[in-house]
Amino acid sequence: MTEEPKKIRAAILGASGYTGAELIRLLVLHPNVEIILMTADRKAGQPIETVYPHLTGLGLPNLITIGDVEWPGLDVDVVFCALPHATSQEIIKGILHETGHGIIDELMIERPADYANAIKGSVKVIDLSADFRLRDTDVYTKWYGEYHQAIELQKEAVYGLTEHYRDEIKKARLVACPGCYPTAALLTLIPLLKSKKIKKDGIIIDAKSGASGAGRSLKEVNLFAEVSEAMHPYGIANHRHSPEIEQELSLAYGEPLMVTFTPHLIPMNRGELETIYVTMNKEQTADDLRACLIDAYRDEPFVHVVDEGVVPATRHVRGSNQCLIGVFADRVPERAILVVAIDNLVKGSSGQAIQNMNIMFGLEETLSLRQAPLFP
Amino acid sequence: MTEEPKKIRAAILGASGYTGAELIRLLVLHPNVEIILMTADRKAGQPIETVYPHLTGLGLPNLITIGDVEWPGLDVDVVFCALPHATSQEIIKGILHETGHGIIDELMIERPADYANAIKGSVKVIDLSADFRLRDTDVYTKWYGEYHQAIELQKEAVYGLTEHYRDEIKKARLVACPGCYPTAALLTLIPLLKSKKIKKDGIIIDAKSGASGAGRSLKEVNLFAEVSEAMHPYGIANHRHSPEIEQELSLAYGEPLMVTFTPHLIPMNRGELETIYVTMNKEQTADDLRACLIDAYRDEPFVHVVDEGVVPATRHVRGSNQCLIGVFADRVPERAILVVAIDNLVKGSSGQAIQNMNIMFGLEETLSLRQAPLFP
Amino acid sequence: MTEEPKKIRAAILGASGYTGAELIRLLVLHPNVEIILMTADRKAGQPIETVYPHLTGLGLPNLITIGDVEWPGLDVDVVFCALPHATSQEIIKGILHETGHGIIDELMIERPADYANAIKGSVKVIDLSADFRLRDTDVYTKWYGEYHQAIELQKEAVYGLTEHYRDEIKKARLVACPGCYPTAALLTLIPLLKSKKIKKDGIIIDAKSGASGAGRSLKEVNLFAEVSEAMHPYGIANHRHSPEIEQELSLAYGEPLMVTFTPHLIPMNRGELETIYVTMNKEQTADDLRACLIDAYRDEPFVHVVDEGVVPATRHVRGSNQCLIGVFADRVPERAILVVAIDNLVKGSSGQAIQNMNIMFGLEETLSLRQAPLFP
Amino acid sequence: MTEEPKKIRAAILGASGYTGAELIRLLVLHPNVEIILMTADRKAGQPIETVYPHLTGLGLPNLITIGDVEWPGLDVDVVFCALPHATSQEIIKGILHETGHGIIDELMIERPADYANAIKGSVKVIDLSADFRLRDTDVYTKWYGEYHQAIELQKEAVYGLTEHYRDEIKKARLVACPGCYPTAALLTLIPLLKSKKIKKDGIIIDAKSGASGAGRSLKEVNLFAEVSEAMHPYGIANHRHSPEIEQELSLAYGEPLMVTFTPHLIPMNRGELETIYVTMNKEQTADDLRACLIDAYRDEPFVHVVDEGVVPATRHVRGSNQCLIGVFADRVPERAILVVAIDNLVKGSSGQAIQNMNIMFGLEETLSLRQAPLFP
Repeated sequence: MTEEPKKIRAAILGASGYTGAELIRLLVLHPNVEIILMTADRKAGQPIETVYPHLTGLGLPNLITIGDVEWPGLDVDVVFCALPHATSQEIIKGILHETGHGIIDELMIERPADYANAIKGSVKVIDLSADFRLRDTDVYTKWYGEYHQAIELQKEAVYGLTEHYRDEIKKARLVACPGCYPTAALLTLIPLLKSKKIKKDGIIIDAKSGASGAGRSLKEVNLFAEVSEAMHPYGIANHRHSPEIEQELSLAYGEPLMVTFTPHLIPMNRGELETIYVTMNKEQTADDLRACLIDAYRDEPFVHVVDEGVVPATRHVRGSNQCLIGVFADRVPERAILVVAIDNLVKGSSGQAIQNMNIMFGLEETLSLRQAPLFP
Repeated sequence: MTEEPKKIRAAILGASGYTGAELIRLLVLHPNVEIILMTADRKAGQPIETVYPHLTGLGLPNLITIGDVEWPGLDVDVVFCALPHATSQEIIKGILHETGHGIIDELMIERPADYANAIKGSVKVIDLSADFRLRDTDVYTKWYGEYHQAIELQKEAVYGLTEHYRDEIKKARLVACPGCYPTAALLTLIPLLKSKKIKKDGIIIDAKSGASGAGRSLKEVNLFAEVSEAMHPYGIANHRHSPEIEQELSLAYGEPLMVTFTPHLIPMNRGELETIYVTMNKEQTADDLRACLIDAYRDEPFVHVVDEGVVPATRHVRGSNQCLIGVFADRVPERAILVVAIDNLVKGSSGQAIQNMNIMFGLEETLSLRQAPLFP
Repeated sequence: MTEEPKKIRAAILGASGYTGAELIRLLVLHPNVEIILMTADRKAGQPIETVYPHLTGLGLPNLITIGDVEWPGLDVDVVFCALPHATSQEIIKGILHETGHGIIDELMIERPADYANAIKGSVKVIDLSADFRLRDTDVYTKWYGEYHQAIELQKEAVYGLTEHYRDEIKKARLVACPGCYPTAALLTLIPLLKSKKIKKDGIIIDAKSGASGAGRSLKEVNLFAEVSEAMHPYGIANHRHSPEIEQELSLAYGEPLMVTFTPHLIPMNRGELETIYVTMNKEQTADDLRACLIDAYRDEPFVHVVDEGVVPATRHVRGSNQCLIGVFADRVPERAILVVAIDNLVKGSSGQAIQNMNIMFGLEETLSLRQAPLFP
Repeated sequence: MTEEPKKIRAAILGASGYTGAELIRLLVLHPNVEIILMTADRKAGQPIETVYPHLTGLGLPNLITIGDVEWPGLDVDVVFCALPHATSQEIIKGILHETGHGIIDELMIERPADYANAIKGSVKVIDLSADFRLRDTDVYTKWYGEYHQAIELQKEAVYGLTEHYRDEIKKARLVACPGCYPTAALLTLIPLLKSKKIKKDGIIIDAKSGASGAGRSLKEVNLFAEVSEAMHPYGIANHRHSPEIEQELSLAYGEPLMVTFTPHLIPMNRGELETIYVTMNKEQTADDLRACLIDAYRDEPFVHVVDEGVVPATRHVRGSNQCLIGVFADRVPERAILVVAIDNLVKGSSGQAIQNMNIMFGLEETLSLRQAPLFP
């Protein structure tokens, strides 16, 4: 397929947010993708260069409203959905219906073995919102305060943590990309919990993120003069990424578990760092943990376990799809400290979405994601 | 004494570092203090305005080398020592000798009851380095790699965490001001450990600091282009502030304890935030912890426990001697999250030093420290 | 009056903006001022610590709406008006009427010799908006797109560039504080134009400001992720500070003149720097220009001409009321380069307003404005 | 040639500076280039990932000293020289000799018509230092304080302002890439001066640059805490880029001219903005100037004249080889304001160097330079 002249026709819903812009930045480098449609309700009618002048001269279609998309008959292969939480459900449900494949999700109570063939040729949806991340829609309701509007689709959705769900993603019609914080936490912790290197209790994730994680929305707390020369935690003990992290870690461990998760706003544009505190199981050492992670990610193009003594830093992954993980022995017996760095807009969002797209379409996984980080 | 026309004559050793500059900034506002001498070996001969143009027009003496200070006969009441670690010991030993009171520290194996009278009229030393913070000089040797050069003085030195050693500071001849990280951690944890609200095990201190904490030294890692748009932890599991924190927390709890402590470099000039994870003792709640801290700091001018739901942020203390502490219940049972914010150069260093000076000289404790924070 | 126990009773209208907050920060340090009233329509009912947590514990009254102020009978000595442009006129007109002195401004077509006595005892108004800065209300209408609503008051208003209108300010009832950009430009250029050291034509003011100059308003362009790691000019050739600068420079020179003025947004919170390009008159040198400025500001507490070779930098005035001016010979014959640095929120706004208040009330001019700059 | 399996073998001298790192970042994306050698004297023996962890996993050779390069017989096609000023001359002279083509530069007093053939097959050198930028070696001596060590080579060197010297670059053996400030200024001004749209006198270039322009050298003024929340001009009226700008503008105009040039340090990593003030010739308008520039750069892939009313901003070119130019009418009659934005490390340095390499080797000019800017 990589040699075909026919390009994958991609639509981006919600192109005026930062994740939308980042999808565009990366996709225009993709040899096999053509962006054929971009929506942004409040900026409809404008060329993308008016909304994002850094995306000038790329020959992209003008922004339209979602309502103006003529879904039936639309020749589109993949839809990236970068819409606000809660609006994605209805729209994605609609897309999958209106493009003629709606019947499938009505029937799919369980994911059947031949599912991959059934949807062959259909549109694929890659959702960057939180709408399909939580497998239990009651949990969704609890954390997002609304009933889920696409319960059947939720059952079908594949959690898009690439390195751990590659096989499922390959066959998926709907991929729910992880949140930025869960991406970093899960890549670090899943192998350690799966292999019982660490205890399931007392995991503490102290997360720090640049301001782009808050999106382009107009809030006082996001103004330059408020964020610059300042830092503070937010969503303490109630951030919506908590249940997502716990869902996947519980699956990895095989038992329900809870984590302590505290995100902080840091005065920088991009970059996310998590310092994770864990208790090791008997006779495990930090070296064992590191070996476990090295083993888990040996062949991965984007997840790297740094050498002993090297400290992951966000500047080393800026603008790239890389994830760096470091393992450190604590002075306190039985405890270890894990440090993980990603770019929240790339591996934490749009980059991982494109990595998933490459997999869904049988392409080389690193396509359009190979640029080295931008430093300084 | 506050009404006296006679001013306290202050010397600043190491005036060319950021903590030295901050001492000057604050002291020139002090109605009872006169800066009579400032040293900076590499900048000797220069006026302070050449080294720090923001300190122009203050009528201060030129910088000299420490070697050029004529200690015998010097009319000085207080010496602020903002020198690099390891050099302070010898110099302070010298000062206390050469000003004629050296005999005292030879005799003082134990701090006698009438000590306050004995040193009456003598020079007082406020050390901002790490040299006299660790009560056990073997611990000093272990962490700083050198033998302590003033073991007797170490016994005499008072740990200058103002709110918890006020009575000792009042009578002290030598005060060892806490490190910036210990200041924030100890103010938050001492009351909780003393009252056994929290367990001594499993305390995790995730600390974040602006770049001024690294001082004005020329290292690649401190260059603007390396720090800006970047963050990373450092000194993981081996930062020298660890034993200092553990020393004081162990004293507070009454048993030896260890903590996990991880500092991070954040792209901002000033400000320090610590997110502290603790396990509560049986039947304690976050509200109990908050009440305990409110009780401990009810009458303090600089330590404030914020209301439930309010999140301490470094921008709320920038440039001021304030310390804000918030208490949050975790979702994980029995766990609580404490957040503390200070300005590393003020409450974390020079401000606390001046607060101690005010106490040592019987002055109103907030003198020269009353300015509101600078925001934005 | 400085010895009196009776304090000046101050009201702040528009306390929720950055200039309002800065007025509070500085005034609470003032030994002779008491803040008795603060308005902020959208934040009415809240304590200031909710809006600005850095202003906690200062014992200030809660915010109210302007409509809720009971002007008649209100015991207030000075009103700081930090309201958006165009709303100030009506309100100030009202204040001066409703407090019982309205009759005065009806009669005052020209400012009579005994004016100072006539308003004795009345409320004084210090306006930080642009509403009374332009002496010609037609010019106001042209640049602000609306008819001026207080033409008679405009005639009475004194332009509050402290160093050049001190005598008028002393006797004024209404002072219109200059814009931040005009403050820096005028302090630099007025003495040079008055003394005909430089030509009136071809003056170019390239101005750079931190983001706090844009205020706390919610605009996409003011978000952290847009401003950080970025810079751009704005209001090119049509910024509203242009006519204000030209008005005062024309007065200084004695003939109408125009300037080229280009402001730029810089990724920092505070600080304003102007690089001003001028053509010298025959036989003038950069040294002559410097001498002229030194002469003009010899006795000023806040305006300093730096030594030859020293470069003004915003970090040297951060948080202070200082203004630094440097003069440089260009390589191009007959041309000189002037560099001026202020803190836009202090000397460029709230600090200068308080300096004017001190003058209006016969107080020592530097009261509450003596703190050294905050660096780093 | 673009289809050939044989790759261009590139060496990078001075790989440990920011421009060296940027060359690597871009070249590893180049389909036709292979980096075979990298030097960095102080980091010799280390892999590049130790010096620049963002350049990890690229399969690059370890760093060596320049002294350790075995030039004779070295199979290298192009040498990028990112060394400090003054050291490049000798080294480049050596390279061109020791690879066996030294005789050529001895004979080449004038560049003969068949020069391109004569050097066919020889190594090509792209110098990023200032050593070969000034055509008059006396001017070099005046500004750099040293005699030029390769006067004959200087005569041969082509000034690498791509858009204006493309034909010469195509045939060149040695290209001297322009400084970052000159690149932006010249791209904006050359077409206007050539066509006599603007007067040659009174051109003022107010330049602003991010901190990466200062390189990775350890100077106090480059520390984070000094640069952040701060700005100041430097090199006023004596910056070494002045003669370079004047040289090329004088050539464009046909008569010697001087410019006023003032660079400023801005608290950001990357990005350069120049605000240029010019006087238009009779009957010229800003629209005429814009039309002239549009015409000059109509077919250029990297230089874009923005639409009327659009303001170039550095965030729109961050990390890319783009140059944005805007033209604005001033209110002052006959005057216009030009605004130009580039990334100082890309179009201002390493990107332009690679663009020149592409031309020198007959490749498609945009190879490895097509990524969209990184925003936010």
